[in-house]
This record gives sequence, structure tokens and C-alpha cells, in this order.
Amino acid sequence: MNSNTFGTAFCLTTFGESHGAAIGGVIDGCPAGILLDKALIEKELSRRKSGQNNTMSMRKEPDEVEFLSGLYEGKTTGTPIAFIIRNKDAKASDYENIKDVFRPSHADFTYQMKYGIRDYAGGGRGSARTLLPCVVAGAIAKQILSTQGIEVLSDVIRIGEESSKSFSQEEIERILSRFREEKDTVGAVVQGTVKNVPVGLGEPAFQKFQAVLAHAMMTINAAKGFEIGEGLHAARMRGSDCNDAFINDGGKIRTLTNHSGGVQGGITNGEDVVFRVAFKPIPSVMQLQQTVDSQGKATTIEIQGRHDVCVVPRVLPMVEAMAAMVTLDFILLKKCNKI
Amino acid sequence: MNSNTFGTAFCLTTFGESHGAAIGGVIDGCPAGILLDKALIEKELSRRKSGQNNTMSMRKEPDEVEFLSGLYEGKTTGTPIAFIIRNKDAKASDYENIKDVFRPSHADFTYQMKYGIRDYAGGGRGSARTLLPCVVAGAIAKQILSTQGIEVLSDVIRIGEESSKSFSQEEIERILSRFREEKDTVGAVVQGTVKNVPVGLGEPAFQKFQAVLAHAMMTINAAKGFEIGEGLHAARMRGSDCNDAFINDGGKIRTLTNHSGGVQGGITNGEDVVFRVAFKPIPSVMQLQQTVDSQGKATTIEIQGRHDVCVVPRVLPMVEAMAAMVTLDFILLKKCNKI
Amino acid sequence: MNSNTFGTAFCLTTFGESHGAAIGGVIDGCPAGILLDKALIEKELSRRKSGQNNTMSMRKEPDEVEFLSGLYEGKTTGTPIAFIIRNKDAKASDYENIKDVFRPSHADFTYQMKYGIRDYAGGGRGSARTLLPCVVAGAIAKQILSTQGIEVLSDVIRIGEESSKSFSQEEIERILSRFREEKDTVGAVVQGTVKNVPVGLGEPAFQKFQAVLAHAMMTINAAKGFEIGEGLHAARMRGSDCNDAFINDGGKIRTLTNHSGGVQGGITNGEDVVFRVAFKPIPSVMQLQQTVDSQGKATTIEIQGRHDVCVVPRVLPMVEAMAAMVTLDFILLKKCNKI
Amino acid sequence: MNSNTFGTAFCLTTFGESHGAAIGGVIDGCPAGILLDKALIEKELSRRKSGQNNTMSMRKEPDEVEFLSGLYEGKTTGTPIAFIIRNKDAKASDYENIKDVFRPSHADFTYQMKYGIRDYAGGGRGSARTLLPCVVAGAIAKQILSTQGIEVLSDVIRIGEESSKSFSQEEIERILSRFREEKDTVGAVVQGTVKNVPVGLGEPAFQKFQAVLAHAMMTINAAKGFEIGEGLHAARMRGSDCNDAFINDGGKIRTLTNHSGGVQGGITNGEDVVFRVAFKPIPSVMQLQQTVDSQGKATTIEIQGRHDVCVVPRVLPMVEAMAAMVTLDFILLKKCNKI
Repeated sequence: MNSNTFGTAFCLTTFGESHGAAIGGVIDGCPAGILLDKALIEKELSRRKSGQNNTMSMRKEPDEVEFLSGLYEGKTTGTPIAFIIRNKDAKASDYENIKDVFRPSHADFTYQMKYGIRDYAGGGRGSARTLLPCVVAGAIAKQILSTQGIEVLSDVIRIGEESSKSFSQEEIERILSRFREEKDTVGAVVQGTVKNVPVGLGEPAFQKFQAVLAHAMMTINAAKGFEIGEGLHAARMRGSDCNDAFINDGGKIRTLTNHSGGVQGGITNGEDVVFRVAFKPIPSVMQLQQTVDSQGKATTIEIQGRHDVCVVPRVLPMVEAMAAMVTLDFILLKKCNKI
Repeated sequence: MNSNTFGTAFCLTTFGESHGAAIGGVIDGCPAGILLDKALIEKELSRRKSGQNNTMSMRKEPDEVEFLSGLYEGKTTGTPIAFIIRNKDAKASDYENIKDVFRPSHADFTYQMKYGIRDYAGGGRGSARTLLPCVVAGAIAKQILSTQGIEVLSDVIRIGEESSKSFSQEEIERILSRFREEKDTVGAVVQGTVKNVPVGLGEPAFQKFQAVLAHAMMTINAAKGFEIGEGLHAARMRGSDCNDAFINDGGKIRTLTNHSGGVQGGITNGEDVVFRVAFKPIPSVMQLQQTVDSQGKATTIEIQGRHDVCVVPRVLPMVEAMAAMVTLDFILLKKCNKI
Repeated sequence: MNSNTFGTAFCLTTFGESHGAAIGGVIDGCPAGILLDKALIEKELSRRKSGQNNTMSMRKEPDEVEFLSGLYEGKTTGTPIAFIIRNKDAKASDYENIKDVFRPSHADFTYQMKYGIRDYAGGGRGSARTLLPCVVAGAIAKQILSTQGIEVLSDVIRIGEESSKSFSQEEIERILSRFREEKDTVGAVVQGTVKNVPVGLGEPAFQKFQAVLAHAMMTINAAKGFEIGEGLHAARMRGSDCNDAFINDGGKIRTLTNHSGGVQGGITNGEDVVFRVAFKPIPSVMQLQQTVDSQGKATTIEIQGRHDVCVVPRVLPMVEAMAAMVTLDFILLKKCNKI
Repeated sequence: MNSNTFGTAFCLTTFGESHGAAIGGVIDGCPAGILLDKALIEKELSRRKSGQNNTMSMRKEPDEVEFLSGLYEGKTTGTPIAFIIRNKDAKASDYENIKDVFRPSHADFTYQMKYGIRDYAGGGRGSARTLLPCVVAGAIAKQILSTQGIEVLSDVIRIGEESSKSFSQEEIERILSRFREEKDTVGAVVQGTVKNVPVGLGEPAFQKFQAVLAHAMMTINAAKGFEIGEGLHAARMRGSDCNDAFINDGGKIRTLTNHSGGVQGGITNGEDVVFRVAFKPIPSVMQLQQTVDSQGKATTIEIQGRHDVCVVPRVLPMVEAMAAMVTLDFILLKKCNKI
């Protein structure tokens, strides 16, 4: 089953484990004739990169992307674009202690039970590092979207009990450093926005824009909740407050409010797509935890190694990447709505 | 594009508009040799049926399912199971007034813009009535799951500003009648639970259990948010509080708490899958609303006809149906993990 | 698994057994805004209809198509087009004698072994009658193709040992009546042609035009071989004879010959797509045959009922239908090659 | 669109151009816990390797496979298996003369027209070298099949006008050297056999065993025809000759003959699957050919470089690889037929 592929027209297949030879991806269906700006790809990867400051994982990886196919003189040719990122700072020995012990709220136990075997080093396929190929593909999608005037943005709006319209990088670091000192981790909420979305994206009944977007976001490690527009708050509202009145805005049909978050009936209405993703705290707390070993015997674990305190800020390019891929995919699919 | 199909191994394709000849579905991949209990299907449909009390839409539909294929002497044969439900109480004339006017926060505008044409009566393909085939397929999935000891349940836990562990039917009616009197509508939250889930369901990286479940739920009309386990609340937590310690429970590896909602790394861990879906208020409020017509000219609309005040309680069998289909699908797919 | 669905952008899902309540289909992805000419659909179905003359099966079916969804005032709306054809002249009792006996070279044995259950009447899901929904969808595809100037044609070029550039209807009947007298059946070859195909259809590496076309043709009952261009004869040729030289034909790049059958590298080159499908004799010979019963005990069978002598001429609209669907699908997919 | 992916449960995605950095593939859905025998993979690749003798292309490539993911201590883990083969003997300069000229019966013209851009060196994505990843994946599939007692074999049964039950390697070389001397190329027919196939593989209606097998074979470069069982010859036969009588062979239901080629109703019946693929001559003849340039101007071309005379014998491991992947895929899918 092609469960490591995401997308219908613009498809990304990813592969790789945290401490294997390489991680990478294959993009199938990228439109031909696009001159790729590799600096933009590097920029997104560097936003994702670890080892940047005290509150981030200490692993040092250059994260250089090598493109293997699908480009001719820097332009996309319509054939699959394969790329790899070598794992260089892999230290499997750091993980000897988790070989036979299941870390709480990690994927160790479920992978072992599902497949009867697992590459435990660094969490193997369950590692957040395996999201890097999405960032690469998302950077390409973003570049194509920008040729259509579409922009994808994200903001950190909550870390633990603190919330903001958009935390600055310094504010994030200040909050996270507190948790690091306490050898603990913390959850967060990211808000994503797709601006200048064309009307008509999304394919009912089962490929509704918000459904595919939710699917995309809930594949990100640690995501536990998704909202679009008013989201959970909509459950507390009355229809007379929640409805978005249509208006004629200088010849263009728009809505007076955007409680819908840019989607009605599964199809974009031309307003900004606004959504939020809630992430749980990273489970690698630096404290003694109760667990069992692979034989089911009760034991404790004290996680070593290099770990983040929170998914933010590193998850931001990932949220944007997935949103960009979803949006581009629907732009391509929409071409088939009429002959 | 097969956007009206849901599922990979157990697939449902739906069709039909609110006031067309019929709505229906085709189930492909239903395991062979299952004796279908049609009473169970009728029971689920009757939970979904309108016209039951004062707070529900007044449309009277018998909603009788006619099976056209895939059964032999009442048993599934492994071939596609097609079924239809005739629309009998269709009154297209009720909707003449919305032919050229876009109802706020409905799908009228987006369908018109996407396809350049729409069947406006009753909301056409955008109507919640088009979810009925999911309830039928879900009832079949539920029956198959029950042979594996798996149960799918749902509770209304919020209506507007009121919340509960599980509202009774009378409580729901009491709350909703108040909104009906005020000619308004209201949002709600439904909690779903899948009990006795086997370990190992879900296919990383992009078909993670929670991602496909979120996808399924966000295809339901009016859904604006999805949570699994602690959901949005996880963003406020510390890792030391949110982690689920593993324990040996009489020889079986379990978790002491279930903040994860039964899924870790995209794969079920054997605990109950617990999720919530937030629904916005039904947009058909019985009040004068500002909007535009198909020419973009400002106008007002006062919606007539037969409308619910809230998606609950009628959405409950739908939430359960989608959860059942997702669970069954992953049970079938898991068979391919090993030779 | 969605094994009863064909197509990627223009998708047909079929259902139904020979003697069940109805057969039918759901078309997903039909472009919006097309005014369907139902007379063209009826025309294709009547070419497919049985009971027309002495050499055809005697089953009398009106084969009336009822459209259930996806149309508004006769035009496609972009939502799924469902349709059913009721089975009216079904006589399950005719087939009591095959309930527990496997007819040689029919699908009785394999269905029974695969699913452990089967609807035996008329061959159930294995019946050629189940191809009718393809003819309906193909007629719609043909109509859309004709708006692009594309035409799909077919000819009978071989029946048993007799061959022709294109047999007339009378010649076919003359040949077949001979086999009917001898209580035997016979094979045939059909040549299909798609005219005025645009350059650029087909998606390498695995959705090459000829590969998908072969797939489509080999799903037709009794098909045992597929050829494109020179086909099997190409194996006997030299490169210097088989290559198609490019020429400039009044400003348009064309090929001097068409040994390739209109496809190079899996992509159409603008020349006519020319292909052939070889069909085995219909296995329902009216003679005593050796076989086994469901317990594996040796027995004999003498097939009763209403059977054709040869797949031609009734298979012609089916060959055209599948070719039309493949061509239309690739036209839609090609839209995604560039942004 | 995921057009570079083949398979449903056992999926291969390929990438790479003839003279790019690397070619490779990603296998998704390989069952977990299989200890890969890399020597078997090397063996298949060496059968595919060029530069072996006078009648084969002179390109010298070590064709070493580097596995990047999906293995732990040599065993499959159920996660995607990515692998690459570096292109080392790439000489893009050899192809300067075809940069602006379309080689007859190659994919140069169609790629250029479809995408507006192409990597011309060595035929780019259209090169037969891009089939190598299929051979790798097929070798893995073969190994898994062998654990089930299933074997996939192939024979060259025709080269040009000469035919045999199975040509030896020396006979093949003798015939081909004659064509090389004449600076020409020649077509061939390969017969494939899958032995010990379980009953019940294949998913009607549109994923019939023979349809997917035909699809697979027709994706191989230069394939122009596909046959199963009697194939085209079936069109010349009578039903009374072509039918396969069922017999009880020591308690097992088998057929007396195998005109069907192991498939009835799209489902394997337990007899050997026997099929044939016809290949056209390789279009790179070493003679002056008429063609046009990229501006459509008439010109001539004399192909230089390193080219085979015939697809055989190098295509044999490719035919076997595709047949192995199809068979394994259906074995996995069959697991879903019953709960």
C-alpha cells in the first residue's frame, strides 16, 4: 500500500529513518518547466534545522539536499523529482538504551507490535526528522504557488498556557528555555494561513479542502487537533453569529466575516484559508519515567540524547509545507473540473 | 478523480443530490461471506432520520434502502454492494427562492463558482442528506467490526455553551428547543470512541490512524474541528503530564493513562480510540440575512423550508459510521503488513 | 479495494450481477456543464443489446438506463453520475443446473474458490452483461471526445480462420450462423481506432497510453490478447522497417508510417491510435462437456439457456467505450502537466 | 499524479533519467520481517546489465544498488525501501546530436511535445535504463514469492522470423550478431510463466489478473503486444477446442488443458500463468534515417553511441520482475477478501 505517498496530482513519496543512510522523497506530478530556486528550499530547511539554539535538539546535520532526477538545467521536466538528504550525525549508539524499552508516548511500542521489527535508533521511521522531505517538497510547492500569487504563512499562537496573536522568535525561546530548565517539554498551537486562494479548490464529497488539509496536518508528528475557521469555538456559537454574510466588494463576491476559514461545502470561497494545529508536548522528557521493556516487564527509562522542548518553532515550515502541497494539489485537480 | 470514494480496502463511493431521483452508494472491498443484518442498517438510518421531533427538520422520508448487488441469499459475495435510497418527499419548489441567491455559509456559492452549474434544490450535493449512504456503509462496517469484538460509540458532549459527559436525548431536545424558539441554530461537539481496537492499525507515514480519522470526520457537513486524545488541550500540557506510562496489565502491555487517545506514531496501541468533532451551527437560520444574488447584487434572504437547529443528535450515526469504516479499513490493510 | 473502479480523472465504478436487481455505475470526475445526449447512450446500448438476431443470446432486456444523480436540466454538474439498468428478464431458475457444477472456462470455479460464495445465476458478476455500465460511461466519454473532434471506431477483422479489413454485419452473421448450427462457438479479433488524438496523452512510466489501454481491453470478458500498432508482428520486423520516419506535413510534425500505432514512449504522437483485441470463443458451447462439481467429483454438463456464438458484434461498443474512457482520462490528466 | 508508481499493496515508485545523477526506486508495502538476499538482487541486475557481449550496448555501468532505508539488520521493516543506482558511465556529450533532432520511433518527440522540455541525453526518462529499479523490486518480490513456492520464469521464443520453444543464450547471440553486422535491429517475443500460483489471485472487475499483467508488460519499453494463454490464437479457435475441462487430479480440481493460461474470469485458477510479450525492434538502427528537427525542418540522423540490437536477452529479468510484482501484489490483496 502506498501509505508513504501524499497527494493526488502533486504527489510526494517519502522514505528514510532517522539514523539510516539517508532520508528523501520522490515528487511525482510536479508541473514541467518550473525553474527551481534551490535557495528557497535551503531557506525552508534551515528554518527546520536543529541545533540552532539552546531549546532545540543538539543534533548537527548539514541537511544538504541532493537532487537525483527530474530536473534539466535547473527546470522541472515533468518526470519524478527524487532527492535525498544524507544522515551524517547519526549516532545509533546513543539509542542502545531504548532498543528493548518502549519510551512512553513514542511510537516504539506500536511499530514493534505492528511490524514485529523496528529500527529503534532515533525513533527510526517515527522520528520527526523523517518530515524533512515534506519541507523540501513543500518549498517547491510554495514556489509554484507564488507564481499564482498564493502565499502560505504560519504563526505560533500558543505555547502551554501562554497565548499570543503571533509569538516572536525571542518570546518563543524565552518560554521554551523555562521548560528546558525544568527538564520538561510543552505543547503548542500553530495557526496557518493560505492567502489569495482561488475560489473552487477542494473536491467533494471526500476530498473536501478542509478534510485533506486536516489529513495533512494530522500526519505531522505530535499533532493532536485540527481546526478550520472558528474551529472548536464554532461549537459554542449560534448560526446568526457564525454565518458569513456575502457582500459585493468592488465587483467581487466576498464574505463580510470569515468564520468559515475560507472553505464552504468543502470548496474554497476565495477568503483566506485559516486553520490551526494543536501539538502535544514532545514526549522525550528528561525525567525518570515508568514503562515496560519488550518482554512487558516493568522498568524505568531516563531518555538521553538530543531533544527539543517543543515542536515549535521547527514545525512551522512543516505546517506551511503540507498546506502548500494541499493547495497546489487542488489547483491542479481543479483543471479537470471542466473540459 | 475519484473524490466521492472513501477508503482503501473497504471503499465507499457515494452519489446523489438532496432532491434528485435517489442517493446511494457502492461498497467495494467488503469481505465475502458476511450475513448482513438489515435490521441493524435500518436502525442506524432511523437514528439519522429527520422528522422525529420538534427540533428536527420536517422532511418526511421513509429512507428505505434497496440493495441492488453484491449479496447472495443475504450474504456478501465479495462483489460491489450497491444500494439506493429514493428521494420521495422532494419538493424542489421549496427552493425556488435560493435558485439565484447564495445562502450565507452554505455551499451554494462555492459549487456555482467551481462547476459553473449546480442543482440548488435542497442544497443539491452539498446537502447533509447525501451523508445517508455513509450511514448504510458504516452500519455494515459496524456489523463486521462487532464480529471482532470492536464497538463504535458516540456522545454529545457540548451544545453551544452547555457541556456534559454525555447529554441524554431529553437534555438535547430541551436545549435545542430553546434555539428553535429564537429562530436560531447552534453548534455542538460529539465525542466518538472505538473500543477494543487491536494494536497495530494505521499506516505511517501518510495514512496514520488519526490522520485518516480526521479526514473522515472533516468530510461531514459542518465539521470545523477534530481532536484525538487530549486534542487541543494537549497544547497546554507538559510532557511529564501528557505522557502515557506503559504498564503490564495482567500480561498485556497497556498504558496507565490515555492522553494519546489510543494512537501513538499513527498506529493504534490497543487503548480506546477517543476523538472529538466540533460542528458549527447549521447555517439555515430562520432570520433575515444579508447576501448577494448570482449576479453579485446585494440582497437579503429569509430561508424557508425544513431545517434542523443543530447537527446533533442526527449526526451521531454519521460520526460512528465514518469511524467504523476507517477502523475496518485499517484492519483489512494490516493483513498486508506481513506475508 | 476499489477494484471495480476504472480511470483516474474520469472514473467509472460498476456494480451488479447478471440476474440481480440491477446493474449500474457511478461516473466520478465527469467534467461539468456537458449537455448529455441520451439518444447517443441508447444507441450504444442498442448496439450492445442481445436478442437482435439468430446468432445472439435470446435474452430480451429493454436495457433502459435510469440516471439517478449528477445531472441538472440534462447537464452534468461535476458531481457523480449514477445510473442503473434493471434486470427484467432474469430467470435464475435457468441456471439451477450450474449451481453446483463448474462450467469449463467460465469464472464459476475461480469465483467460488476466491470468495467461498457466488451468485451463480447467469454467471453473476462474471457475466458479460456486467459490461453494460461501461458502454454507458463510454458513450458519455465519446460525446465529450467528439466536442474535441476525437472519434473512436472499431472493426471486426477476424472471426475464427476468416479475416477481413472490416467484416460487414451480414458477413458476421453468415459466419456465426455456421458455428451456431454446429453448436459451437468461435473467437474473433476487433481492431479499434482513435482518430484525431492530441499529441501528449499518456503518463510515463506506469500509466503509458498503451499500458492503460491494454489494461482496459484485457478487462473485457474473453479478451486474451492485445496489440498496438504492429503488435505481435513487430517481433518479426527489423528496425529499419518498423521505425516511423518523422516528416513535416504542411507545418505539422507527423510520421510517414504508423507502425507505432500512434504511441511512442507511452505518449500519443498525434497519429491514429490503432490497436487490436483478440477474444477467445465464448465458453458456453451447446455440447456435452467434461467437468467437476463443487465437491470435485467428475461429471458432465450440457449448458442450457441463451448464449452468443461469438463476442462480436456485441463487443464492439464495449471496445470503443473503454478506448473512449482511456482517451478522455488522459486528456483530463494532461491538464496537470503544466501549471 | 502518481504515474511513476506501480502496484496497489506492493508498490514501486521509480525515478531517474538515463544520464542523470542516479536512477532508483521506493518500494512501499513490502511485508516486514523478510531477510533480503542481496546476492539475488545482484544476480537479476547482472542479467540486465549491458556490455556483456557484442550484441549488447557498450555502456559500462557497475549498477551497484545502494539501499537507503527500510531495512534493519538486513531485514525489511515494513517502512519504505529506497534504493539508488548511480549513473557512472554517463556521457551526455554522446547525445549532443539528438538535442534538437527527433529520433524516429523514440520518445524524443512525444516528451518534448508533452512537457515542453526534455532531458535528451540517452533518452532521458524514456531510456530502457530506467527499468532497472523494476528489476531490483522484482528481485525482492521474487524472493518473497519463493517463500510461497512460487516461481517466475521467462523464455525467448521468437527473434524476428526465427522461433523456438526457448532459445539458448548462444542461439540468441548467433541470431543477433547477424543483425548487428547489417547495422539493423530486430523484434522478439518473450514467454513468461508463473508456476505454483495459488487459486484466487486477481480482483474483478477492473483489476483482473490478466489486465494488470498486461498493464505491467505494456509499460516495458518497446512492448507492442501481450497475450495470455492461447492469446491471439484463441481468436482462431472454436469453443469446443479452446475450453479447459475441469478434472479431479488426485483430490485437487485442475484443468485438463491450459488454453486459459491460468486465469478464468480475471482470477487465477491454480494452473501456470502463461503469457507472452511481443517487442518491436530497438529503434536505434545504425543507419541514416529521415526525420525532422525541433523546428519541424526535414533532416536526417545517423544514431551514434551504444545500442542493443534487440531487447532480448536483457529484457528477460524485466519481464520476470513485473510478473513477480503483479503476483505478489495480488497475494497481498487477496488477504482482504475475507475478514
